[in-house]
Amino acid sequence: MRNYKLTISYDGSRYRGWQRQPDTDKTIQGTLEQTISKVLGYGVTIDGSGRTDGGVHAWAQVANVHTSGKLDPLMFRDQINELLPEDIRVKQVELVKNSFHSRHSADGKHYTYTIDTREKANVFTRRYTYHYTETLNIEAMEQAIAYLVGTHDFASVCDKKDEKSTVRSIYDIRIRKNENLVILDYYGSGFLNHMVRILTGTLLEVGTGLRDPHSIPKMLEAKERAQAGPIAPAQGLCMAEVYYDRADQKRIEQEREQRMTYYN
Amino acid sequence: MRNYKLTISYDGSRYRGWQRQPDTDKTIQGTLEQTISKVLGYGVTIDGSGRTDGGVHAWAQVANVHTSGKLDPLMFRDQINELLPEDIRVKQVELVKNSFHSRHSADGKHYTYTIDTREKANVFTRRYTYHYTETLNIEAMEQAIAYLVGTHDFASVCDKKDEKSTVRSIYDIRIRKNENLVILDYYGSGFLNHMVRILTGTLLEVGTGLRDPHSIPKMLEAKERAQAGPIAPAQGLCMAEVYYDRADQKRIEQEREQRMTYYN
Repeated sequence: MRNYKLTISYDGSRYRGWQRQPDTDKTIQGTLEQTISKVLGYGVTIDGSGRTDGGVHAWAQVANVHTSGKLDPLMFRDQINELLPEDIRVKQVELVKNSFHSRHSADGKHYTYTIDTREKANVFTRRYTYHYTETLNIEAMEQAIAYLVGTHDFASVCDKKDEKSTVRSIYDIRIRKNENLVILDYYGSGFLNHMVRILTGTLLEVGTGLRDPHSIPKMLEAKERAQAGPIAPAQGLCMAEVYYDRADQKRIEQEREQRMTYYN
Repeated sequence: MRNYKLTISYDGSRYRGWQRQPDTDKTIQGTLEQTISKVLGYGVTIDGSGRTDGGVHAWAQVANVHTSGKLDPLMFRDQINELLPEDIRVKQVELVKNSFHSRHSADGKHYTYTIDTREKANVFTRRYTYHYTETLNIEAMEQAIAYLVGTHDFASVCDKKDEKSTVRSIYDIRIRKNENLVILDYYGSGFLNHMVRILTGTLLEVGTGLRDPHSIPKMLEAKERAQAGPIAPAQGLCMAEVYYDRADQKRIEQEREQRMTYYN
């Protein structure tokens, strides 16, 4: 038995999310499993590093698949892509240790949330951005972010609390801004159901002045979903990267500390 | 009577091109005319600066419409966008002189052709790029471009010669290259049917070594479509800008001359 790590990019627009559902091929996992089983000639299941919601995209989702024998990674990758719809691409296939698990082995994740602030939405990125034209106070958003970074109970900013614990670590949240886009980069140990989208909805409230940035600690302490902002639309969210090396976590935290030093 | 200039962006993926066709709302012009007529309460036709092919996009196509009375441009724009499908956006509405005509008044046009050279196509830009992974010799392509720039008879690089003359002026062709994309910028007085796509197909043949860059003058002199390369796919092409000021033409030509001086 061999274990292969797959790095996958997808446009989630027409899918009901990552997780396989009975009687539908409208999921990313379901589509990949059907396709890979066809290539291999026997049925397989794959494990993803996280379940993206319907309409959410991925630049580099990671999954792993166990095969009965050894395969040429490049040929395997190309055979899968040949049969996949063009909105899903396997970018890389690597042979990994049998103990590797895309979710359990992960040390961190990077999500981006992209906001198109143009007066009229860009037609070419409309499926991958949230069109939101309110003026944003980035400084206030940075103040709120300072309260969110670190290890906290994030019960207030998630839905469906089916995980054992709602404690997570956010390594950093960064705001990139250019003329027409605002991109929020979220780095953390892992994110709860809807967490990045609810954090984004909450930060947008801070940015427009609806919410005081200094009220964030109280919101977290309440552990009540109702205390947080609305959930931002799925289409702006993208799973950008999954980290399997603690060095990445350290690097992200150090970059944040350096930035804070510059501020002072 | 008033005349309004409309600047329009569209994702051409699901349309049969700009030009209105009977019995179909699958054209950009047809969709815009239906929508604007609904807003105005009476039927209008619009004139576009050029007829993009099926699947070709626009960042800033220009059209003009004559209305019976004066309108508030911002309100007019927003009313049109309210009713348009989200893959077409009117970015700007301006009151112009009655003599303005989007095509006849134009002094030049800028088209881009975008090539995704990644091994696996980027899922987010797949509708707006041509996925082409051959290694390109940019220097050879620049040599070919030097023969194309200027005023020539471009009969060899167009289809459907229904225009009075096939003589056109290319002000400049530029190649932008980053890690994963090659973008060809075409600037000219106007372009014939399929001309930018055939030029792109021809330049790609030069880039891959199939065609000698110094054979371009002979190809133009032949005035035979068969002498040129294949037509590049529609999805990579985008009408980027229309110029209504001769100063723009001068600027583009001067930039080119400066660049040539740097080369020497």
